[in-house]
Amino acid sequence: MTLIALDSFVEQLADASGQVILPFFRARLDVMDKGAHGHFDPVTEADRAAELIIRQRIQAMFPTHGIRGEEHGTHAGDGIHEWIIDPIDGTRAFVCGLPTWGTLIGFAKNGRAVLGAMNQPYVGERFMGDGARAWMTHAGTTRKLVTRPCAHLADAALATTSPRLFTGKDADAFARIESGVRHCRFGTDCYAYALLAAGQIDLVVEAGLQSYDIAALIPIIEGAGGVVTTWDGGNALEGGRIVAAGDARLHAAALERLQG
Amino acid sequence: MTLIALDSFVEQLADASGQVILPFFRARLDVMDKGAHGHFDPVTEADRAAELIIRQRIQAMFPTHGIRGEEHGTHAGDGIHEWIIDPIDGTRAFVCGLPTWGTLIGFAKNGRAVLGAMNQPYVGERFMGDGARAWMTHAGTTRKLVTRPCAHLADAALATTSPRLFTGKDADAFARIESGVRHCRFGTDCYAYALLAAGQIDLVVEAGLQSYDIAALIPIIEGAGGVVTTWDGGNALEGGRIVAAGDARLHAAALERLQG
Repeated sequence: MTLIALDSFVEQLADASGQVILPFFRARLDVMDKGAHGHFDPVTEADRAAELIIRQRIQAMFPTHGIRGEEHGTHAGDGIHEWIIDPIDGTRAFVCGLPTWGTLIGFAKNGRAVLGAMNQPYVGERFMGDGARAWMTHAGTTRKLVTRPCAHLADAALATTSPRLFTGKDADAFARIESGVRHCRFGTDCYAYALLAAGQIDLVVEAGLQSYDIAALIPIIEGAGGVVTTWDGGNALEGGRIVAAGDARLHAAALERLQG
Repeated sequence: MTLIALDSFVEQLADASGQVILPFFRARLDVMDKGAHGHFDPVTEADRAAELIIRQRIQAMFPTHGIRGEEHGTHAGDGIHEWIIDPIDGTRAFVCGLPTWGTLIGFAKNGRAVLGAMNQPYVGERFMGDGARAWMTHAGTTRKLVTRPCAHLADAALATTSPRLFTGKDADAFARIESGVRHCRFGTDCYAYALLAAGQIDLVVEAGLQSYDIAALIPIIEGAGGVVTTWDGGNALEGGRIVAAGDARLHAAALERLQG
């Protein structure tokens, strides 16, 4: 099984999950609340059904691989290969009817994310990457994803899902970043990272992410020439406080600013 | 010239502007800064070109009608009929590559917005309304837009483009609203109002809007059963501080909360 064949398998997972999810999008859903602490965290039937079909296909094809998913928990595998899945990243966008959610399918080997896809079936576009290259497909055409140069915070387009992601000292750190950039866009979820890979956004700063929120995006960002780490420069694979930049110089500047 | 024929004319304007804009979307643009006070306000070539083609077609078809546009200013008309145009609402989304901007084409008669369209050519969807009914088209199908019932702030899905829209007492008023709703989504621009009409969002609260940011959306919201006014309950047509709700009870509750 080469990486090329894995690409095709990931495309199949994206196709299958898209077909499961789309009938639910903009339908009147009963939204359940799974937050343990009164925190609003919408989960839809689409979320659960899509993760299930992805897991079933992985288990049929690679019974020894581990799987981590947002909805159905962790399946321990061989300790080498692991799939990390978020069937609907941006559930709040989804329940609001905004076409800015995405299905995240990541594959890691020995603790390193090596293949990932972000699929948006309503818009009909898919971002993929394998760490060495990245590409997107839309309306039957494929194009290479390359980040754009941007060395300085003052020139940077920043994106984050919500300023409410940050509390305490993290909020102070985010404020230092926000006050220094050219402009900031909220409400972006996984699209921010995909569009950073596409050279449309320079910097993404978030906190409180889970592994399944970021794993699939790492090979896309890195494959397009970007850098993504935790706020202290560590491996982004386990989530937490994440900073991604299209330009390594900007990433270094952002790390310094975040650390005060 | 009946309202039915005007519908078709607005569809033609939406088609034409979409064709002008799309080649610029996700192209590497030089973004100009037109802000007078150091405020970032991106304008693209697409913005200007799209408004121009819309204005040319209106002037050819209705030489006596007035036109207000974001980019090319005001053309005084007969004082009865007026077109109010924002070629790209959500320019920041546009420059970030997010598919959540829209082309707003509004038509007012005697100071009342009576027909409007929000067109999103990349996603391929169009929201329209005439105050009495509202509808959307996507992938060749048309469906009726109807707001959903939601009487109480505590149950409401709130959307706004950015918490940074609000300063001073307006920020306090917005905080009272945000703290009382079920959840809040940022980064929405014109999509928030269109999705309120579609019954996906219950409440939109914004400030600092121009007439061209809201005029086209009023007949869509009202046609779907919603209510949209200024924060003090006045006509929304001139913009300013805007509150839209899918349910008149929620609108009343939001007005009261905004006024402290």
